[in-house]
Amino acid sequence: MASGWFYLSCLALGSLGSLCILFTICWMQHWRGGFSWDGSIYTFNWHPVLMVAGMVVLYGAASLVYRLPQSWLGPKLPWKLLHAALHLMAFVFSVVGLVAVFKFHNHASVSNLYSLHSWLGITTVLLFACQWFLGFAIFLLPWASLWLRSFLKPIHVFFGVSILSLSIASVISGINEKLFFSLKNTKPYSSLPSEAVFANSTGMLVVAFGLLVLYILLASSWKRPEPGILTDRQPLLHDGE
Amino acid sequence: MASGWFYLSCLALGSLGSLCILFTICWMQHWRGGFSWDGSIYTFNWHPVLMVAGMVVLYGAASLVYRLPQSWLGPKLPWKLLHAALHLMAFVFSVVGLVAVFKFHNHASVSNLYSLHSWLGITTVLLFACQWFLGFAIFLLPWASLWLRSFLKPIHVFFGVSILSLSIASVISGINEKLFFSLKNTKPYSSLPSEAVFANSTGMLVVAFGLLVLYILLASSWKRPEPGILTDRQPLLHDGE
Repeated sequence: MASGWFYLSCLALGSLGSLCILFTICWMQHWRGGFSWDGSIYTFNWHPVLMVAGMVVLYGAASLVYRLPQSWLGPKLPWKLLHAALHLMAFVFSVVGLVAVFKFHNHASVSNLYSLHSWLGITTVLLFACQWFLGFAIFLLPWASLWLRSFLKPIHVFFGVSILSLSIASVISGINEKLFFSLKNTKPYSSLPSEAVFANSTGMLVVAFGLLVLYILLASSWKRPEPGILTDRQPLLHDGE
Repeated sequence: MASGWFYLSCLALGSLGSLCILFTICWMQHWRGGFSWDGSIYTFNWHPVLMVAGMVVLYGAASLVYRLPQSWLGPKLPWKLLHAALHLMAFVFSVVGLVAVFKFHNHASVSNLYSLHSWLGITTVLLFACQWFLGFAIFLLPWASLWLRSFLKPIHVFFGVSILSLSIASVISGINEKLFFSLKNTKPYSSLPSEAVFANSTGMLVVAFGLLVLYILLASSWKRPEPGILTDRQPLLHDGE
């Protein structure tokens, strides 16, 4: 029953995540002229797509690796590698997404990093970089002591949840900002043209995805049982995490 | 030691929360002309102050009532009443904050509820209203069965954390939007005038406050022990929560 609910939530999560990315691509393609890599406004259009795909959808999926019941038995290392690899992919998407906006700003002589959206966004990506490198050094490489791992694990989990929350706040403020920019010379945002309704809905989908990840992360019955509980079935789970 | 850290975190929380409110008041007073209740732009200025004070600072403080070690022993009812009363106060602040923006919009013939900020903000306040009334009906009134309370408690906690996260996202997008509006006819936002630096910093303070609340909420050693653990010292804690 609990397992059925879990897989139903995963299905909802996969559908919501795909919709978030598809809606962002569709917004950029249909209303904002599509994509290029020449420094024009079409280069900017990669920014929302890559940030939603990287910092929200891939990041959210990567966070949930240890909620899969398959990861509770057998060696933990392959799941750690998957967790790290998916997060690395999310990080690469985000960095390319940042390059897109800097490239466009520099080409169009627009200042970088002035809005609150950009302050929060860059802080979130920097936190993510620290989180990934610390996670890699402490939990994947074999040098750290068990004591250090146990001490840092709740901090790693806390920053994991925090970075996702900050990503959602960055995406919401980014979509809002982009709509004020894009619609100021055509139908104003306040008249709610179809683009505004579509992009606002994209933002609300991102929020729904973020809340579902948070729900799956916090649901205690879906958490990986502590090693002791599984010892009789799982002799390889011995690293104290 | 753990208790020392807890009170230090509470001290930091109190300071950060006060700074969030003070910075928002100072922004509205010093750069945006202060406050009134006549439907002018000075009526709008109540909106950021009341939303930050209500949906972030008071809400965050109210969420943490059960983390106070004093609440773990003795009858739970006074703490439930405090939790509900503080949240009710936060809700009233938020409603008055919403009235301020609607009053200004209607007076200036500006559309209501078109931006993503407003969609997310109104969703957050509606969720908060449902959360408060359900919490009151299930956990404060004596009619609900123990089974129903245990079933709904994790859902109540999940929505509690979610509403705070959505409030932070709403505040960030709101400050960002307000700065684009206010600065478009003077020094542009992109030139980072002193108002922009100050208001961006206010947004980052709100984020820091939100993360600290999340940290205190999630730290397992600061959670209220389950009834069984305290039974020998606490005969009155018998309602299964």
